[in-house]
Amino acid sequence: MKVIGLMSGTSSDGVDAALVEIRSTRTSRRTRSLGALHVRPLAFGVTPYSSSLRARLLAASSHGTVSELCHLNAVLGELSAAAALRVVQKAGLTLSAVDLIGSHGHTIHHLPHPVFEPEVGWIRSTLQIGEPAVIAERTGVTTVADFRARDVAAEGEGAPLAPYVHHLLLGHQQRSRLIVNVGGICNVTYLPAGGNLPDLIACDTGPGNMVLDALAHRLTKGRQRMDRGGRMAAAGRVDTRMLAHLLAHPFLRRPPPKSTGREEFGEAFLKRVLALQRKLRCSLRDLLTTCCVFTAISVGSIRRWLPGAIDEVVVAGGGTKNRALMSALAAVFQPVPVKSLEQVGWESKAFEAIAFACLAYETVRDHCANVPSATGAKRPVLLGTIVPGGPGWYERLKRRLSP
Amino acid sequence: MKVIGLMSGTSSDGVDAALVEIRSTRTSRRTRSLGALHVRPLAFGVTPYSSSLRARLLAASSHGTVSELCHLNAVLGELSAAAALRVVQKAGLTLSAVDLIGSHGHTIHHLPHPVFEPEVGWIRSTLQIGEPAVIAERTGVTTVADFRARDVAAEGEGAPLAPYVHHLLLGHQQRSRLIVNVGGICNVTYLPAGGNLPDLIACDTGPGNMVLDALAHRLTKGRQRMDRGGRMAAAGRVDTRMLAHLLAHPFLRRPPPKSTGREEFGEAFLKRVLALQRKLRCSLRDLLTTCCVFTAISVGSIRRWLPGAIDEVVVAGGGTKNRALMSALAAVFQPVPVKSLEQVGWESKAFEAIAFACLAYETVRDHCANVPSATGAKRPVLLGTIVPGGPGWYERLKRRLSP
Repeated sequence: MKVIGLMSGTSSDGVDAALVEIRSTRTSRRTRSLGALHVRPLAFGVTPYSSSLRARLLAASSHGTVSELCHLNAVLGELSAAAALRVVQKAGLTLSAVDLIGSHGHTIHHLPHPVFEPEVGWIRSTLQIGEPAVIAERTGVTTVADFRARDVAAEGEGAPLAPYVHHLLLGHQQRSRLIVNVGGICNVTYLPAGGNLPDLIACDTGPGNMVLDALAHRLTKGRQRMDRGGRMAAAGRVDTRMLAHLLAHPFLRRPPPKSTGREEFGEAFLKRVLALQRKLRCSLRDLLTTCCVFTAISVGSIRRWLPGAIDEVVVAGGGTKNRALMSALAAVFQPVPVKSLEQVGWESKAFEAIAFACLAYETVRDHCANVPSATGAKRPVLLGTIVPGGPGWYERLKRRLSP
Repeated sequence: MKVIGLMSGTSSDGVDAALVEIRSTRTSRRTRSLGALHVRPLAFGVTPYSSSLRARLLAASSHGTVSELCHLNAVLGELSAAAALRVVQKAGLTLSAVDLIGSHGHTIHHLPHPVFEPEVGWIRSTLQIGEPAVIAERTGVTTVADFRARDVAAEGEGAPLAPYVHHLLLGHQQRSRLIVNVGGICNVTYLPAGGNLPDLIACDTGPGNMVLDALAHRLTKGRQRMDRGGRMAAAGRVDTRMLAHLLAHPFLRRPPPKSTGREEFGEAFLKRVLALQRKLRCSLRDLLTTCCVFTAISVGSIRRWLPGAIDEVVVAGGGTKNRALMSALAAVFQPVPVKSLEQVGWESKAFEAIAFACLAYETVRDHCANVPSATGAKRPVLLGTIVPGGPGWYERLKRRLSP
């Protein structure tokens, strides 16, 4: 089965599209083994947003109005469909060869912490845009979308959803692995050797690129959006008093499941850190270096909650390009080897899009793909909503699932 | 098959819920006959919104922010699920007896006229809220929602969707019928005797309760939201100069397909009419009477575009309760009989919710249910997005569809 995964990250850079071929082995319900998924990447591409669209998306996610959201939902639907078409062409194929699309869409708002609503009760909500009806109509391919909403409906936080795919694609029979995903926020998935889905542990560990990017932006007076390759951080020194302050953050002491975001490590956190930097007379570059080490230590701090040892650390996400961070992680986890996703056979930048191709596949083969221990959901649920490509969509999929 | 239809109208009064039993006869593809649908209403109920929620919905539809929309989407999901549960209990059943839910949701914004977006092209959009993942999770029942988005994706206006259901439920072998739906806006569906789907004509005809309600509200200095029973209109006289002005509205001269809304007959229209009323020294009550007659004549004016005669007019929607309007319609269509939906066997207030139960049924049995001649869509499409009740959802539905 050929499946396209589409993802628009919170950095609002563009639509990632991955085309993969998926084959599955038989599932055993008795052991809760999922049946291995054989995923072969065929093509990957990014359809970038214009800087004006990027600015509109960022603005809309904090104070967008209803007409702008209504419109942007359709605009991102069109761009997602275009991204799907492009990745298929890149693979030298046509859309008629594609069986299924999984589209994460763009998270425009996320309110996973319950808010009390008189007459109704506690409400959690999340909103992804990128109209799947537009994707299905333009491509003619059945499209699964809105993966997070169902987990939130089941009282989960709707995130992280990647751990299930980590289990399927990165689990190892002999080696216990810790997958470290360095995005804006760092999150980890612990996969014990030969373990099953209920054995995995997944949670956020603290800030990732969010703080490092903001500091690099400040250090270069706005000329750079990130510390490319970790060069600036590599040139500074660790301020131990500052590090001690950072390590006192209560989030590090909280046991999993735990998740965090811009509310805890965004603007307000940065302000506090910068105030401290001036007080301690630490240079901005040394602060960057210190935060880089803090990030690595906060990832390492998760070990106290794990039931077993780690044989291998696998780093995914944009952070793999940051050599200073990779060195810091290697130091923290020593003597356990720290590898990049590439070193275990997967393209880092394509992985998230591939993950949503896999999650769509799981939905149409009736597998619940949230991990309640990771999201906090009450129970495993079938993720997503299905927009049929056209009449006969289910029978076509069924034939491809069980040839 | 037992199906629940859920509808939250633009008046933002509450969630209408109808439980129906649907059986279908075989479809003949050759003749494009749809196969009759036997629909038996089992129960109907309204779950009203509190006045504060109603105010929030009205505010959100014009200038809602992203966090409010994200939250209200989940709130309406919960209220829709509660409405579904309530209507099932009213019928003396449990949710396990229900096979399917069709939820229209609440239209929070509708931008069917194309807007040019650089890099992407012409964009049409529509946004319904009332998270279907919440409905499916609370009820365990597979839920079809977001019916309008796919028609809009196919370059339609996403409305009206009722004509398909009018054809299925109200089409007559011997009598040509004109269905007149009096909501905020008036729309009609012409069903020639024994006709097939491509033979029907459907369009908006002009204002309905929108203008009448606003005038009644003004006439009672805000004490009444509508002219209950049409009593005030019945007590006034028609101002012929005013009527001539109203009948000159260009919308009446436009051929179908045509659709209109608050943009054309809302605040601005009302202002112009009130200015004219003062100029002509016509009383507010006489203006109400005149507008009532204008509404009936604008409905009648559709006859010039119809290919054949009308044997029977069937009036649906809130307007059936307005006796002044019903009399005006009877005068306009004379000698053709004007009946209410009740007189042909259907409960007026339940009909819209029933329609979305039918549309959900059509989607899961792979029938395209938009009417391109009515919405302007390029082609017939499968409407809606499907949120599975849980694993095995499709096989369960399939067994019920073809026992």
